[in-house]
Amino acid sequence: MHVTLPDGNRLDVPEAATGADVARAIGPGLAKAALGIRIDGSLGDLLSEVPGGASVEILTERDGEVVALMRHTLAHVMAQAVTEYFVAQGALPTAIRLGIGPVIENGFYYDFDLPRPLTPEDLEEIEGRMRAIVAADLPLERFPLPREEALGRYRGSGDPYKMELIEELPEGVAITFYRQGGEGGFTDLCRGPHLPSTGRIAPHFKLMSVAGAYWRGDEARPMLQRIYGVAFLTAEALEQHLWQLEEARKRDHRRLGAELDIFVLDEDVGPGLPLWLPRGAIIIEELERLAKEVEEAAGYRRVRSPHLSKEQLLLKSGHLPYYREDMYPPMELENVRYFMKPMNCPFHHKIYAARPRSYRDLPLRLAEYGTCYRYEDSGALMGLLRVRSLQMNDAHIYCTEEQFEAEFMRVIELYFHYFDLFSIDDYVMRLSLHAEEGLGKKYVNSPELWRKTEAMVRQAMAAGGINFVEIEDEAAFYGPKIDVQIQSAIGREFTLATNQVDFAQPGRFGLSYIDENNQRQTPLCIHRAPLSTHERLVGFLLEHYAGDFPLWLAPEQVRVVPIADRHTPFAESLQSRLVKAGVRAEVDARAERMNAKIRDAELYKVPYIAIVGDREVEGETVSFRSRKGPDRNAVPVGAFIAHLRDTIVARSSAVGPLPEAAGG
Amino acid sequence: MHVTLPDGNRLDVPEAATGADVARAIGPGLAKAALGIRIDGSLGDLLSEVPGGASVEILTERDGEVVALMRHTLAHVMAQAVTEYFVAQGALPTAIRLGIGPVIENGFYYDFDLPRPLTPEDLEEIEGRMRAIVAADLPLERFPLPREEALGRYRGSGDPYKMELIEELPEGVAITFYRQGGEGGFTDLCRGPHLPSTGRIAPHFKLMSVAGAYWRGDEARPMLQRIYGVAFLTAEALEQHLWQLEEARKRDHRRLGAELDIFVLDEDVGPGLPLWLPRGAIIIEELERLAKEVEEAAGYRRVRSPHLSKEQLLLKSGHLPYYREDMYPPMELENVRYFMKPMNCPFHHKIYAARPRSYRDLPLRLAEYGTCYRYEDSGALMGLLRVRSLQMNDAHIYCTEEQFEAEFMRVIELYFHYFDLFSIDDYVMRLSLHAEEGLGKKYVNSPELWRKTEAMVRQAMAAGGINFVEIEDEAAFYGPKIDVQIQSAIGREFTLATNQVDFAQPGRFGLSYIDENNQRQTPLCIHRAPLSTHERLVGFLLEHYAGDFPLWLAPEQVRVVPIADRHTPFAESLQSRLVKAGVRAEVDARAERMNAKIRDAELYKVPYIAIVGDREVEGETVSFRSRKGPDRNAVPVGAFIAHLRDTIVARSSAVGPLPEAAGG
Repeated sequence: MHVTLPDGNRLDVPEAATGADVARAIGPGLAKAALGIRIDGSLGDLLSEVPGGASVEILTERDGEVVALMRHTLAHVMAQAVTEYFVAQGALPTAIRLGIGPVIENGFYYDFDLPRPLTPEDLEEIEGRMRAIVAADLPLERFPLPREEALGRYRGSGDPYKMELIEELPEGVAITFYRQGGEGGFTDLCRGPHLPSTGRIAPHFKLMSVAGAYWRGDEARPMLQRIYGVAFLTAEALEQHLWQLEEARKRDHRRLGAELDIFVLDEDVGPGLPLWLPRGAIIIEELERLAKEVEEAAGYRRVRSPHLSKEQLLLKSGHLPYYREDMYPPMELENVRYFMKPMNCPFHHKIYAARPRSYRDLPLRLAEYGTCYRYEDSGALMGLLRVRSLQMNDAHIYCTEEQFEAEFMRVIELYFHYFDLFSIDDYVMRLSLHAEEGLGKKYVNSPELWRKTEAMVRQAMAAGGINFVEIEDEAAFYGPKIDVQIQSAIGREFTLATNQVDFAQPGRFGLSYIDENNQRQTPLCIHRAPLSTHERLVGFLLEHYAGDFPLWLAPEQVRVVPIADRHTPFAESLQSRLVKAGVRAEVDARAERMNAKIRDAELYKVPYIAIVGDREVEGETVSFRSRKGPDRNAVPVGAFIAHLRDTIVARSSAVGPLPEAAGG
Repeated sequence: MHVTLPDGNRLDVPEAATGADVARAIGPGLAKAALGIRIDGSLGDLLSEVPGGASVEILTERDGEVVALMRHTLAHVMAQAVTEYFVAQGALPTAIRLGIGPVIENGFYYDFDLPRPLTPEDLEEIEGRMRAIVAADLPLERFPLPREEALGRYRGSGDPYKMELIEELPEGVAITFYRQGGEGGFTDLCRGPHLPSTGRIAPHFKLMSVAGAYWRGDEARPMLQRIYGVAFLTAEALEQHLWQLEEARKRDHRRLGAELDIFVLDEDVGPGLPLWLPRGAIIIEELERLAKEVEEAAGYRRVRSPHLSKEQLLLKSGHLPYYREDMYPPMELENVRYFMKPMNCPFHHKIYAARPRSYRDLPLRLAEYGTCYRYEDSGALMGLLRVRSLQMNDAHIYCTEEQFEAEFMRVIELYFHYFDLFSIDDYVMRLSLHAEEGLGKKYVNSPELWRKTEAMVRQAMAAGGINFVEIEDEAAFYGPKIDVQIQSAIGREFTLATNQVDFAQPGRFGLSYIDENNQRQTPLCIHRAPLSTHERLVGFLLEHYAGDFPLWLAPEQVRVVPIADRHTPFAESLQSRLVKAGVRAEVDARAERMNAKIRDAELYKVPYIAIVGDREVEGETVSFRSRKGPDRNAVPVGAFIAHLRDTIVARSSAVGPLPEAAGG
């Protein structure tokens, strides 16, 4: 038989030749360097037979894709190391049972059923044994077995996981094994592909962690221990990856939220219900101030509504028929069922309905920072990004059909305004549509109105020249919507903002207005939340800024550090001048060394550390360290305050021109 | 026998002499003027026998207390009129059954079981018949009956109410009747006292309303119709009373809340859960701004907490054992019971506990405008003054015992600051103490700590020279408190503010701080809410100001009224200058007559109506009407805005010096 080489030439090889045979036939140098093979475009290994007539390419370490072979082989090496490690500690080999061990992004894992839980020290030992197996350069072999013989290998050891895997393989599919280290070597049921020997594994790997994992992801099945490892072809790639992980860990909003005293979750309060500490509350109040200013200028009117209502309100709105499983369970009071509100809209509809409305009152934009409560499975909760309490930057805009496009686009422009302010440029606008099969179940059953409003949104976005993608079956139950999908700095994806059309609720609530011709009409309603919820936005911003908030958002804007006790009065008068100017400042008057005080302020990521000593007291100046700009010495107090004030008022995320030192 | 007269003289009268006999014995002039009698200090009537040896005084219309006789007789006159009225319409006399008809403050009522509901027109007719009965000057008589005979009178008519009353009279008590108009006249079971004849009733009475009233106040018994009337001795007194009622009606916050678009209650949302309309939300946000400024200056730190928690938090705090019946019922989620929060304290305790605390951190003052939810029987709810959602001006101050007195008094000073701001001078400070029999039931069972903390509060108040009264059995479950009892302008009494010591919860939560000697100590906690809740405060302020809010609180501060269309651009530029200066201003550009626009602005009690016409456009001036100061013409725009701005920033409730007109 023959194979075709990358240069187009045919190469004659014996029947049943393996990749290694092909490499050898090309030349001894290549045979030595070979790590894998590409067969008709797919990655394969040197141990498998090459089909006659295939296009083949021998892969060496210069071909990045061989990293997958290495990761896969590392999974087997780890399984061998774990087995040896436990046997060395006196475990019976049959007490160590293996699940699956696949390649994943950046590395590999393997699931084990072991006599005891693994510790970080175990991982070190296991990694050491893995390096020894690599050094021993054990050759790998591949062999098929008939089904009964394959099952027989595990029946003896009583390994239920491997038997289950074999039993599920369809007839006609080869059941193959890989063995490393010759007769009696570690053998594993596997389709491959792998490296030809453990010695070909680059040493740039590391075991990372152990986590519980249900067999087949099924909570009803046994929980195994999953060991994660990472592996790369070069030391630089490994280093870069570990650095990124460390960076992500540092930026994780849960970690930063604790370190910077932003929020806590408390077992007695309940999952998904954060408590905001004073520093977190400051950030929230700044965000609310921002939203209220922007919305006041845009003609919104603020309202307030309670956090629960009778069942009948939510039946009317459609939440109970269409949104029940996202809601908290009912309370029963005086024979009436009450529910925590999952959304603010029904209350705003009631406020709309509380007075007769004419076309002159439209658009009517009702805004509220209302806290809603939704049920999320406790397993799905995550820090501030998946919670059960949602304080939303909410508003509902009631308008005529003619006003719809302009109002909808004003909301989209609001998005851009905020993205700009927060330096957000990595996002996708998504038009979420209904799905026909969900009508009457998760979507209000009005096919005509779905088509019409979806077309309206599409038209508005197109007219505004906004790029967007369309996704089926992601609409709200009452209409289509534009969601903004965003990535946090450490790669978490989620919906930050939303702009929704509601053609259903205004009718269900009997909302109306009297038009120019004295006719009663039903308004459209736009639901919008450009700043998402406090929970999600603060979680995002923590990761986005890595805790280094722009000055206007920083909970503590200036920490004044007196060098010695005698400078404390000046430090306190400086603080009081700062506070009067609307700057959040604290004095660290503890009897600690200056450097300790500076370090503590840096741990809180305080944007400016103002140091005052003899020189500053004498000259009425400040020397400061800035986290974002250069440090300065002997800046006149007035100039320092003016600089801070200007940066805060502008809500600037950059640092403007810094004040210069006092002359002389 | 004899009686003693006010001048000390004895007067001989026949055995069984009545008050009328005594009056006649004194002299014919007095007998004619006599309306009632005071016997040994108690009010009696001229129809009853006077006991021998009693001190007596004949009463005439100069003695104010005879109004009670008149009101009582009016109740009988009304009962007669109602009976005649229904019989005249063809009802059988036995279809009209009477309950009780007592004297109350300002008037009287009578409960009826009638063939149909009464309308306002019925009341007019009945009042007309009453005046006819008064004009007919029917004499009253009083007679006793033996029990069986008394029952017999009603057994025939089948009147169950009167029979029940008679059956409940203990043996030995005389069963007496009053009859008016001689043989066959209207007769009623009654102890008296009454006027001697219907002609002695002053014409200054009025029937006011009908309301449903359960027989004996028992929901399980039949509902009767209660007719209320008022009656006075003079026309002036009646007029004054009706004026006060009208004033109270106008000031009623429920009425003003609707007229001024402040809040609505909605049947679908639920009782006691107000929705705040945009104008109400503005007042709330101004109040919050005030509180945040004051509290920031006083060293408070703001926090935020969710509106519900797991059951275990409220078990720990003591709310579930001691406060359960004031709480909403539970929700069950993932096999855990959750409750809406009845108070913010448990959450603030958790925030305290979230970080290690040292004596240097104390006092720690955690503030939150948190919305709590409490169960009140729906029958007890009233507008904004008794609600189920309570957005509290809340804070918890954690301090050492040494700091307690100063911190507690700083809170009391805060009260005075606010009372001053809102011109509140009619209040009582009340020290609410525990009651021994409530220990372990409604009060935490620590008798020692109760005594100690009650003494601490008493001592702090005394040291501060503050007047207060002490009331037993009104404490919080966790400690004693100072409540501020207040009267609204229309006489409603309620608790506006509260300042409480908590010796129980800090221990239950294991709260601690490290003292100067490195020892772990438990802090005290002060719960305080000087501005009460948004609901109660806004309700109070509506009545207090009769809707005429001081400028800084007014939802709309200026209404700009262009005289003609050609003045609208100037009006709009004026509005935009006002808004930029932080003044809430609207333009009424409707095609209505100026007077209609002014009337509409007055209905909303807008403090300033700025009228702009040719003269104003030409001179860049404003002519305005002020609700609290004199009107002004041709005031330069700049001076007008500065005047508003100054009044707003000062949160002045008075109007400062008004700007003068432009020269020329």
